[in-house]
Amino acid sequence: MIYITRRERFSAAHRLYNEDWEDQKNEAVYGLCSNPLWHGHNYDMWVTVKGEVDPVLGYLCDLKELSEIIKKNIISKVDHKNLNLEVEFLKGKMVSTENLAIGIWNELLPHIEALGVELHSVKIQETENNFVEYFG
Amino acid sequence: MIYITRRERFSAAHRLYNEDWEDQKNEAVYGLCSNPLWHGHNYDMWVTVKGEVDPVLGYLCDLKELSEIIKKNIISKVDHKNLNLEVEFLKGKMVSTENLAIGIWNELLPHIEALGVELHSVKIQETENNFVEYFG
Amino acid sequence: MIYITRRERFSAAHRLYNEDWEDQKNEAVYGLCSNPLWHGHNYDMWVTVKGEVDPVLGYLCDLKELSEIIKKNIISKVDHKNLNLEVEFLKGKMVSTENLAIGIWNELLPHIEALGVELHSVKIQETENNFVEYFG
Amino acid sequence: MIYITRRERFSAAHRLYNEDWEDQKNEAVYGLCSNPLWHGHNYDMWVTVKGEVDPVLGYLCDLKELSEIIKKNIISKVDHKNLNLEVEFLKGKMVSTENLAIGIWNELLPHIEALGVELHSVKIQETENNFVEYFG
Amino acid sequence: MIYITRRERFSAAHRLYNEDWEDQKNEAVYGLCSNPLWHGHNYDMWVTVKGEVDPVLGYLCDLKELSEIIKKNIISKVDHKNLNLEVEFLKGKMVSTENLAIGIWNELLPHIEALGVELHSVKIQETENNFVEYFG
Amino acid sequence: MIYITRRERFSAAHRLYNEDWEDQKNEAVYGLCSNPLWHGHNYDMWVTVKGEVDPVLGYLCDLKELSEIIKKNIISKVDHKNLNLEVEFLKGKMVSTENLAIGIWNELLPHIEALGVELHSVKIQETENNFVEYFG
Repeated sequence: MIYITRRERFSAAHRLYNEDWEDQKNEAVYGLCSNPLWHGHNYDMWVTVKGEVDPVLGYLCDLKELSEIIKKNIISKVDHKNLNLEVEFLKGKMVSTENLAIGIWNELLPHIEALGVELHSVKIQETENNFVEYFG
Repeated sequence: MIYITRRERFSAAHRLYNEDWEDQKNEAVYGLCSNPLWHGHNYDMWVTVKGEVDPVLGYLCDLKELSEIIKKNIISKVDHKNLNLEVEFLKGKMVSTENLAIGIWNELLPHIEALGVELHSVKIQETENNFVEYFG
Repeated sequence: MIYITRRERFSAAHRLYNEDWEDQKNEAVYGLCSNPLWHGHNYDMWVTVKGEVDPVLGYLCDLKELSEIIKKNIISKVDHKNLNLEVEFLKGKMVSTENLAIGIWNELLPHIEALGVELHSVKIQETENNFVEYFG
Repeated sequence: MIYITRRERFSAAHRLYNEDWEDQKNEAVYGLCSNPLWHGHNYDMWVTVKGEVDPVLGYLCDLKELSEIIKKNIISKVDHKNLNLEVEFLKGKMVSTENLAIGIWNELLPHIEALGVELHSVKIQETENNFVEYFG
Repeated sequence: MIYITRRERFSAAHRLYNEDWEDQKNEAVYGLCSNPLWHGHNYDMWVTVKGEVDPVLGYLCDLKELSEIIKKNIISKVDHKNLNLEVEFLKGKMVSTENLAIGIWNELLPHIEALGVELHSVKIQETENNFVEYFG
Repeated sequence: MIYITRRERFSAAHRLYNEDWEDQKNEAVYGLCSNPLWHGHNYDMWVTVKGEVDPVLGYLCDLKELSEIIKKNIISKVDHKNLNLEVEFLKGKMVSTENLAIGIWNELLPHIEALGVELHSVKIQETENNFVEYFG
């Protein structure tokens, strides 16, 4: 069993807030992160897949294909976007890094499996001081 | 003459657009960066000051004071903010990294001089692949 | 189950030595690291906690609270300190990165549990070329 | 149980190709990476070992010894070398990052065990956007 | 006057050697770097251009255009290539980082000027411990 | 004219204090940094030299020789040392990053000139958030 990780990056706007609460309560709970006029981040994303090395090809999977899957199914939907307003798979969810990681996992899962490998983890780094990991 | 640099960071939303143009023209010129629903970045900022080492204190200036000047005059105004809508010193300007660096220079200049040192440069990194430097 | 990691940093002096040995033996075993006049490092620390995403709040835990717990219980005790002479939870121990990670884990554990999440790991990086991880 | 990781680096040339195929098929499968005139990388390698902290010495193992084992058994054989033509433990293998990680694990295993600790993982980073991990 | 920098990356094989010398003398002078079977690196390249901010567009130049110029004129010629054997603008030169930076400067200069800005510097990093800068 | 930079690293203990002042005044002026029991850092140092590319050798200078000069004249004197008590060229000086950069410049200058190149700058990074540059 071998693990291979591909990093991709995107930049996006978002805010933390609960639709059922007024701005005042959102601010009390989420602080600056609930700014109704948005803020944003450069997100780093690491997608780790695992499996057996292909005896003929000599690798686990084609990294270029893996990268294209991530770009087509995730990056094109989140890069230079408003995560709260424009991303289908985050609709109705609090756009925390946690929910972002889970949402990305769910979006990627069928495409990674179609590649013939297993999805091991999705890691999202929001700033240099915090990141989230989801293993399904 | 010695040069000392302090790094501070902020996260913000913005878009590139010219108020005199329609969304269509803005998109043609600025591409994804003109998304009317915003996007955002983690910005890294390096402020470099220069001068002579103080013979009694043994340093150019108190780094803590330098950091507080940057935090009070810049970070508090841009962090977790919408750079287009909420930042006084960027009003009416295209919010490019270039104008951001120039705007921050102008805001900082009197406060750095009051500290008794010379402002040498402001460097703003928008993503790991591009940064802007302004020397006044 | 989701994992979230917070990085905090501190700078400190220390030396590697066994109190039961003379300086000569300490030097033979620990080399430059046993310098009786001390040396020091910038330590990077990553604290990883895990649990379920809170369905109302949309995150695992408040990162600001997590950061404050680490600052109050660890950073304030080790930053700009002599790890051998001034840190209660390292008294009588060889101040290796290993024992530092274990000591920090033990200090943090009750406070992390009080936050309602599980402590998963403490990672301490001493230089860019070596780090230690402890999972309890 | 504590985990300690040592990073070492090397620079080498290689190409991806299957000896049983002509250049044309190799290029179709491996793209630019199969260039018959070679290309190369700076490889970062993290070797993680685990075990109990020695109660007398206060650490898991001597990091300097660990580093010397890696340098003697791996770095000296791969640094500034052609991985396809000059490395005994890669002979007859497709020189992917996957096979590199597995080959390094096999080379290191007896020497790490002789040090009295357990080999936990070998991680090889080929570019800033991809790395491979092997756990045996 | 504002300075903007774009980073691009490439991976390549090379060796240091003087064609007029035998392998033995090359090895005596250049050490491991003269390995006749090649070695390689991940090269990081920073291209800095300068000029006045365009009053209508609000930036110095279109970063995407700058990136495309670098990719078309440099990256496509050096990435996954053998710098000694396959790169026209390095023919007959010792492929040091110094000559690489000078060669890239000369290749880029007319294209950067055609973009309406001034080329300020080319910086090439060969490993994390050394880089070269050329200002024309 | 070409510029080449070599990075070297060291770890050391120090404190900021003025010998003419009592501990109380030192603490008032330098804060935590004046801890009489010391603290420490991992210091990153970049030494930049400049000159013409040697037409026969194809480089500015032998990077290995440059590295050895830095190691012999600086690293061996400061690494794993107490900068206030054990470093001849800092005796009687406030051990700020500024004075460290100036002291290292003065130590290196004759040796760099003996190598046949010009010393351009010494840059010392004390933490990821601050660094000092000295150009003589």
